[in-house]
Amino acid sequence: MTLYQDLALRLGEHIKHGFYQIGDRLPSVRQLAQEYSVSISTVQEAYRQLEQERLVEARPKSGYFVSQPYQHDNLPTISRPPQRPLEVSQWEEVLNMLMIRSEKLGIQLQHAMPNMQAPTLKPLLKTLADLSKQHPQLGLGYGDVRGTIELREQICRLTVASGCQLHPDDLVITSGCQEALSVCLRAVAEPGDIIAIESPGFYGAMQAIKAAGLKVMEIPTHPETGISLEALELALDQWPIKAILATPTCNNPMGYTMPEEQKKRLFKLAQSYDITIIEDDIYGDISYQFPRPKTIKSFDSDGRVLMCSSFSKTIAPGMRVGWMAPGRYRDKVTHIKYVSSSMCPTLPQLAIAKFIRLGGYDKHIRQMRQHYEQQRDHMLTAINTYLPKGTRVSFPSGSFVLWVELNLPIDCLELVKTCREHGISLAPGPIFSSTGKYRNCLRINYSQLKPHERENGIRSLARLIDEFTSTKKTKSQLT
Amino acid sequence: MTLYQDLALRLGEHIKHGFYQIGDRLPSVRQLAQEYSVSISTVQEAYRQLEQERLVEARPKSGYFVSQPYQHDNLPTISRPPQRPLEVSQWEEVLNMLMIRSEKLGIQLQHAMPNMQAPTLKPLLKTLADLSKQHPQLGLGYGDVRGTIELREQICRLTVASGCQLHPDDLVITSGCQEALSVCLRAVAEPGDIIAIESPGFYGAMQAIKAAGLKVMEIPTHPETGISLEALELALDQWPIKAILATPTCNNPMGYTMPEEQKKRLFKLAQSYDITIIEDDIYGDISYQFPRPKTIKSFDSDGRVLMCSSFSKTIAPGMRVGWMAPGRYRDKVTHIKYVSSSMCPTLPQLAIAKFIRLGGYDKHIRQMRQHYEQQRDHMLTAINTYLPKGTRVSFPSGSFVLWVELNLPIDCLELVKTCREHGISLAPGPIFSSTGKYRNCLRINYSQLKPHERENGIRSLARLIDEFTSTKKTKSQLT
Repeated sequence: MTLYQDLALRLGEHIKHGFYQIGDRLPSVRQLAQEYSVSISTVQEAYRQLEQERLVEARPKSGYFVSQPYQHDNLPTISRPPQRPLEVSQWEEVLNMLMIRSEKLGIQLQHAMPNMQAPTLKPLLKTLADLSKQHPQLGLGYGDVRGTIELREQICRLTVASGCQLHPDDLVITSGCQEALSVCLRAVAEPGDIIAIESPGFYGAMQAIKAAGLKVMEIPTHPETGISLEALELALDQWPIKAILATPTCNNPMGYTMPEEQKKRLFKLAQSYDITIIEDDIYGDISYQFPRPKTIKSFDSDGRVLMCSSFSKTIAPGMRVGWMAPGRYRDKVTHIKYVSSSMCPTLPQLAIAKFIRLGGYDKHIRQMRQHYEQQRDHMLTAINTYLPKGTRVSFPSGSFVLWVELNLPIDCLELVKTCREHGISLAPGPIFSSTGKYRNCLRINYSQLKPHERENGIRSLARLIDEFTSTKKTKSQLT
Repeated sequence: MTLYQDLALRLGEHIKHGFYQIGDRLPSVRQLAQEYSVSISTVQEAYRQLEQERLVEARPKSGYFVSQPYQHDNLPTISRPPQRPLEVSQWEEVLNMLMIRSEKLGIQLQHAMPNMQAPTLKPLLKTLADLSKQHPQLGLGYGDVRGTIELREQICRLTVASGCQLHPDDLVITSGCQEALSVCLRAVAEPGDIIAIESPGFYGAMQAIKAAGLKVMEIPTHPETGISLEALELALDQWPIKAILATPTCNNPMGYTMPEEQKKRLFKLAQSYDITIIEDDIYGDISYQFPRPKTIKSFDSDGRVLMCSSFSKTIAPGMRVGWMAPGRYRDKVTHIKYVSSSMCPTLPQLAIAKFIRLGGYDKHIRQMRQHYEQQRDHMLTAINTYLPKGTRVSFPSGSFVLWVELNLPIDCLELVKTCREHGISLAPGPIFSSTGKYRNCLRINYSQLKPHERENGIRSLARLIDEFTSTKKTKSQLT
């Protein structure tokens, strides 16, 4: 831990323990520098971090003050999915969403797409264009089935931040995180096996479970701490669960990050029942916390964690560059990856490797982290201002999606159709369930639009909800 | 059929029926133009085609003559694989081959890689570089899970040449033909099911069968006419075979093209046993015959044929652009494609679509077809000249690989290792079998090297075979 992180930690503790109260003016930079015998810039850095953590706010010409914490007392309730293994349905609904042509998305709150207009992406795009022009031959031949060594080396470096110590041979590059999840599921389970997942959970993972002939067991999930370990343990006692698939860091769709202690307990639980964990860390690098949270993979002492990730949320999904760190399943995973799509295109891998190596990725991520955190706050304000009273909303600690639970007898599959006709696209709750639950829920993306567009979008959504509930007969079958 | 094709067909018939004998001088261009009331250029075009079909040769200042047919009386014998369903093995051997870094390939006779130095590819590479530079944003977002409409439209146009009438909605773009085969297998069969294949057959398809938990039933295969329909029918009577996976046009590894009548019979057989056909047409466009042979898909009256292909052999494997025309399995195939790798990168699709639309692809293919046919003849000459007496070799009617059967008690897995140490890389026969048969066989690529390099390669191979058989104890277990 660096000096400034240490200082930020101490000051944070003081605030949390009430030594400084909300609204209190904090010691000046100069005072603190003297008191702790550190440089001015170290104190400034510490304050900057506390600002990021929203514990402190700077007021021009007055100094730093303890800020009013965001009141997130309207979090969604803990989920209560049926506690038995089930077939995954909802493919039609997912496909309906996927098939909308991008030019028809209108106000795009639907796809979990990052902001791809960021100037910090330019060096990467330039490298890619240069490679394409100067070394097109590099993109033509067959490459290593595990991916280029250049990229695997850089990913090893990146994952140090999440507590991992990986070797390039521990990694296999994939066509996005979707291929990684799909390959890992097929490596650890056989048709008929049961996979435990968070509920609500990522529809792409659920559909991969379906396609592999597996069954899903949704586990109650808390909007702040993640999958309920108590419910999971009960399920493990009762059913022959083969693996747990989870997104514990900056969860999709809820945005929570499972506390480190819970992650350790989850790993221990997997050990004691001798099952594997497939950890989806796709949003991990855009946690608003710095340094970023550790992965379950970082506690993996016996190779039972298969970590999956990609650059789809940190750079762009169209790059189709993901990876997996499959632990002791490496050989099987390599086989399934080879038969699934042979190797991945070389040029994007080389361009991303260079982007990381020259520091462009870190810089980009730093900016995006701050950007998304601000956008989250705007989005929460808009939601709290415009959506009907009683609406519950998750409080993301990273990523750029959140989960909205409407306190209304409304069918969001229908609502989403109506919204689409009015130029707003949203992801309906039921696709995040194997059985079409969460009918009164929506997942909303806040990565891309400008604040006023977003506010207009949410205001229009509120109006449509209002019209919808007053004019349409809504289905009473709610979750 | 155009006028010149019609004329070429008539002249060809005359030659085949002995009206003109080998060495005979054929009528002059002017004579024929008068006789058939066609233009001079039509006759010239007809003669050019007959030259391509190797029925006719032009002698400077003398005219056209009936040419001496190539004596291919040393074809491999019809294969005799065990007639029962088996698990696929040989992954270690395939992986060993895949893991060789490209800079260590030396004289590359191993990978089925096309010639990617052709100047006719330049317009495509330029488009790709231009897109990358001018419209990088096009490559960043999520695209249609079925692939871009631009490319699907162009593929519909291309497949007319193989007798198909497809609509863009009938197609799904994939990450190469490997993904197409893998997805189609998973769509038509469930773990434990049996898939009938050619023997020897493509190792990638066999490993996909293994990964999907399926069993393989290798069917005796003739080096000129393909899979034995009699043996297949016997197998269908005896075993609950779920599907047939075949590469009937420019087969890998043997290069034969199944005659059109046989293809029709194969389709009828599939109909009468109500099973599906997965048709790998990856080499179809580089058949040396013009117009190119029809696919089984072109006879598909009830949607039971899933055609798989890609631009890996016609353009470059590193593009990772393939497709499938999955007939009545479209919905299931779309689901499995989505979970396998979400969508495919957009820029290569758009670049290839433009390449086809502007005629660049046709031009490139025309050149490659002639080029590979010449290279085949050089390669056959080298093999017949240098390899040991008794060596049998296939006679490709397209593609750029051929199959060599050594008449020696030799283990080609060992031979290939030795060759690699001496800077020659080759594909060993056993990987083209589910059980490691074909130990005395090799697949040899003739796409890439210059004739003298190729000749040196084959001469060195001959020397190594000689040393190998005289100094090493060879395994007696032969096929």
